[in-house]
Amino acid sequence: MLNTSSAQKLSPKPLTQRPHQQGVRPQACHSLPAIQQTVTVNFHYGVHFTRGLFMPGNSSLVDVIAPLDAVAPPSPTRAIVVIDGGLVAAKPELCEQVLAYSECYRKRLHWVEPPLVMPAGEAVKNKPELVQSIQQTIEKAGLCRHSYVLAIGGGALLDMVGYAAATAHRGLRLIRIPTTVLSQNDSGVGVKNSINAFGKKNFLGTFSPPYAVLNDSDFLMSLGDRDWRAGIAEALKVALIKDAEFFDFMADYAGALVRRDRDAMELIIHRCAELHLQHIATSGDPFELGSSRPLDFGHWAAHKLEQLTNYRLRHGEAVAMGLALDCTYSYLDGKLEEADWRRILDTLQTLGFEICCAELVEHAGHPEHPDSVFQGLREFQEHLGGQLTLMLLQRIGQGFEVHEVDIARYQAAIALLQAQSSPA
Amino acid sequence: MLNTSSAQKLSPKPLTQRPHQQGVRPQACHSLPAIQQTVTVNFHYGVHFTRGLFMPGNSSLVDVIAPLDAVAPPSPTRAIVVIDGGLVAAKPELCEQVLAYSECYRKRLHWVEPPLVMPAGEAVKNKPELVQSIQQTIEKAGLCRHSYVLAIGGGALLDMVGYAAATAHRGLRLIRIPTTVLSQNDSGVGVKNSINAFGKKNFLGTFSPPYAVLNDSDFLMSLGDRDWRAGIAEALKVALIKDAEFFDFMADYAGALVRRDRDAMELIIHRCAELHLQHIATSGDPFELGSSRPLDFGHWAAHKLEQLTNYRLRHGEAVAMGLALDCTYSYLDGKLEEADWRRILDTLQTLGFEICCAELVEHAGHPEHPDSVFQGLREFQEHLGGQLTLMLLQRIGQGFEVHEVDIARYQAAIALLQAQSSPA
Repeated sequence: MLNTSSAQKLSPKPLTQRPHQQGVRPQACHSLPAIQQTVTVNFHYGVHFTRGLFMPGNSSLVDVIAPLDAVAPPSPTRAIVVIDGGLVAAKPELCEQVLAYSECYRKRLHWVEPPLVMPAGEAVKNKPELVQSIQQTIEKAGLCRHSYVLAIGGGALLDMVGYAAATAHRGLRLIRIPTTVLSQNDSGVGVKNSINAFGKKNFLGTFSPPYAVLNDSDFLMSLGDRDWRAGIAEALKVALIKDAEFFDFMADYAGALVRRDRDAMELIIHRCAELHLQHIATSGDPFELGSSRPLDFGHWAAHKLEQLTNYRLRHGEAVAMGLALDCTYSYLDGKLEEADWRRILDTLQTLGFEICCAELVEHAGHPEHPDSVFQGLREFQEHLGGQLTLMLLQRIGQGFEVHEVDIARYQAAIALLQAQSSPA
Repeated sequence: MLNTSSAQKLSPKPLTQRPHQQGVRPQACHSLPAIQQTVTVNFHYGVHFTRGLFMPGNSSLVDVIAPLDAVAPPSPTRAIVVIDGGLVAAKPELCEQVLAYSECYRKRLHWVEPPLVMPAGEAVKNKPELVQSIQQTIEKAGLCRHSYVLAIGGGALLDMVGYAAATAHRGLRLIRIPTTVLSQNDSGVGVKNSINAFGKKNFLGTFSPPYAVLNDSDFLMSLGDRDWRAGIAEALKVALIKDAEFFDFMADYAGALVRRDRDAMELIIHRCAELHLQHIATSGDPFELGSSRPLDFGHWAAHKLEQLTNYRLRHGEAVAMGLALDCTYSYLDGKLEEADWRRILDTLQTLGFEICCAELVEHAGHPEHPDSVFQGLREFQEHLGGQLTLMLLQRIGQGFEVHEVDIARYQAAIALLQAQSSPA
């Protein structure tokens, strides 16, 4: 609420009567009231699902960034396109398709530069000069805050381009076109961007919702089996903490998913994206100003395991192991029933995920060892700030938060996972 | 609104019946509905007014960043302090005072580093390495998203530090301590930050509300007369478009302001900050996603005049001239009454502002000349994006927006200002 009662204070009289002229302690006598400001910002964006996004005749993209029913623009919508180099290697025809697309819709759409092709994978987040090159392109082309930046690629590419777009002119309109399972169902639909800096992952970034997200399942067909599977872990995670019915569906279709059933994958991505978006919209803390991050269920161990395995484990694979660990802890803690716990581990293993690895076990007995997985607890708390807040599982479809954990019980959980993963 | 009706789509049946398996056009047949996301973010911050902010016994600051009624923190609140070098030159004792302040409250407050002193003035926004040095300090000290960055200085310093703080860990808590009239009543209480890049002012930045703002009028006492006066222009601007009573007050107290009456200045800063904050809170577009920016009344010419005079005119002085121009245009346009127009020019001149300069006149006859003030109209539109939207004056206290202007009438307004400014 704004204080709006100060008009009377503007009359000449108080000027000669204000108490701080008497020479008492400054803060005690100063009579101007504090102003309490509330700023409410509403962001709207659509997450669209299609196939053949850049096929001539597919108007999904142009309908989003240059809609026909808008006030006729004086000239075509101006945009730049940034593409993941790994994707271009797998689909060499993509750049041509993107160029042909704007030709097809040339009255509505204009790429002001040829597509910018960036290095593949996480490397793109370790090169600040790539952020600058995108910003310089925006500046040279005279793009404004109503122009568009399209980012086509996996989560790392989307993060880096998102950061560049969010900071140029305090934010151009970002169109995310995620091309992996993980980015289509998770990071690509959210409100964050980032790059790595000073050796720390995601050290620089902003909270900046996209203008729109376009998910095209055609891109998934060129993924290797590990990347296809890895993205499923985030869908399992959100099902476990929010939607038992969705977990049942995934358990039933685990075999189909392993066989790369595209229809099943599309449904899973859609529901996972929907739950993720619902959480952001209704959590009350979309820009994470507090210390709680329920969607990071299983992630404290996952982040540490990625690092401990020197990224031999991909993010989704590490998340699957982190889920196995936190579910097992929840079971040993007397919260999760044994049958549910067994069903979760079975589903993870049917999907082809490892539920234990050497690095998880090695220094578990010495939590203070820098290579112990338990260092991940401290780092997780440091990253979020404030009090430690972890999500655990009450039952399938229902998470709950704790602020302290029992390391001995976690050690027992690791031992149990080790036994389960090598039954021989 | 989120689409929450997809549970049924997760049943196995649709999987074998989905129409896009028939091979028709991809976008027409794809049955997964788009998800429309709305994200609402609420920011709260207080703007506080005090004297002697760093005097022992003044608890304003520590009450904001380490309140006693909070859950007892395990250790003192961690923060870094960044100070404007120009301010340190004028008040060499400031660094000592800042250090002594944390000693005085050492159970609640801990500066993890000695104050970082930055170059004075706009230069600070032209050195990206300063942004990096602040971020590196944050990283080295292990500060988290719940730690604080204090910025003490004028608008340029606050902009640069705000950008560094907003992007490290996606945003630490920024405490702004503005030390000029302009930053206390205008930029320092708002939601933006920026640095210059690629030769363009404010090219990089974000919308990031501060955690709190602390205005201490002691800092104003060391300002030179030009800076004291220049900050009044933004208060006049907001009075003209929003609050006739406030304009009356400023007109009545113009003489006192020129004589550097501190009480009058404090009241003006408070009311200006209040109107500015009220606008941000109620405009419906605090992050400027649209094309309209009512608070930029008088600014299209002001920005251009700063550049055309090679920054001989300070921002507030250029704003005063821009106000004179747009008020004169409003008068010639038949909107503003002659008596009101004369009163506005009188007040500007009583305050010591110039209402015309050689650069305003020189290329006014050739709007297409790169050094014509009218190039500012095009640049203003480009910066905001979308349609040209200018604020003009209906009467004192009431602005209105237009989307096109008559250059010939603006040329007549410039001629009239030229005549008014040199009546001899």
